[in-house]
Amino acid sequence: MSFGFVIFPQAEELDFVGPWEMTTMWHQVAEGPKCLLVAETNTPVICAKGMSVNPHYSFVDCPPLDYLLVPGGQGTRTEVNNPKLLDFVATRGQSCKAVLSVCTGSFVLHAAGLLKGRKATTHWGSLERLRALGDVHVIEERFVRDGFIWSSAGVSAGIDLLLAFINEVAGEDAAARVQFAAEYYPSEQRYGSLHRTHASSPKYLREA
Amino acid sequence: MSFGFVIFPQAEELDFVGPWEMTTMWHQVAEGPKCLLVAETNTPVICAKGMSVNPHYSFVDCPPLDYLLVPGGQGTRTEVNNPKLLDFVATRGQSCKAVLSVCTGSFVLHAAGLLKGRKATTHWGSLERLRALGDVHVIEERFVRDGFIWSSAGVSAGIDLLLAFINEVAGEDAAARVQFAAEYYPSEQRYGSLHRTHASSPKYLREA
Repeated sequence: MSFGFVIFPQAEELDFVGPWEMTTMWHQVAEGPKCLLVAETNTPVICAKGMSVNPHYSFVDCPPLDYLLVPGGQGTRTEVNNPKLLDFVATRGQSCKAVLSVCTGSFVLHAAGLLKGRKATTHWGSLERLRALGDVHVIEERFVRDGFIWSSAGVSAGIDLLLAFINEVAGEDAAARVQFAAEYYPSEQRYGSLHRTHASSPKYLREA
Repeated sequence: MSFGFVIFPQAEELDFVGPWEMTTMWHQVAEGPKCLLVAETNTPVICAKGMSVNPHYSFVDCPPLDYLLVPGGQGTRTEVNNPKLLDFVATRGQSCKAVLSVCTGSFVLHAAGLLKGRKATTHWGSLERLRALGDVHVIEERFVRDGFIWSSAGVSAGIDLLLAFINEVAGEDAAARVQFAAEYYPSEQRYGSLHRTHASSPKYLREA
């Protein structure tokens, strides 16, 4: 089994490294899939916050994938018009057991034709923009599953998405081992009140 | 102001990318420091789970730093014997306003002479090993501050550490903006019961 993480210029770092950590830990502690980073070419990818990552494969030489994840970030604004990336996500995605997006990665899934008529979510700052596409049922939860398509809210939410995904695919014992190995028992501290008071705060935070 | 993140072979991905995301977001939304990744040389660094990262600077050409973070990972087992890395952390760390470690990065701080007689923590799987060093007051919390030294528990705990750090250094409004921008309002879901039942589970989880 193999799990591909698509990266592109201006992909948001934690959007893919959070899920990467959970998935590679799954591989290490509970026989999860092998993980790889794939980009349009084999050259370094400069992420949204300046981290430079060397992909393992290009779209051309990427081995078969069972699972595919697309992160978000400013780069999605241009990648939704990148025919090579959309073709890769559409073609590979259709044959995958599951396709996942984090943050504004959902716009890439949509542009690749994978979200039509489906429930999905994105970063709170882009919920209205996702709704405006007209053919996505936007859900303001931490993460959403609709069939083989899984999507999460912004940036850090990809970690929660992956644990729920591992729990579904491999069972609670596997998810528990990954959560424990990554010591993912986050603080419940809320700084300030933006999550409750900001006009664009998502439903799952306003009602928490 | 500048914030340096030390990376080395077999550094754990989320250990530094979680804090990197919080700190670069701080730079973006609340005038936080500029952030950079620094390694022994300018060549690609292969992390513990296989991600390849290109550092921005080497130890030789790294600009002055105000803050320094050292991640953990399997690589710390050898880096505690790497005189170039220890010299960099010791020399730069002593002049920084704060030095932070995530996970087993605390062993690097210790080897660099920065933890003697101080309170600190590490990944649950290494608490006994940290205690066995003899001159560290090991605290089984999510994160710990002792003067200008801040340390966190394993892997994902670095995110909580950085938000607490930003709250302390820049105030709650800055921490709130970063938390909201990164949508860091994690699920409270606990899979299985390892966090309560495992013999090595840290005190903050057993008593939660």
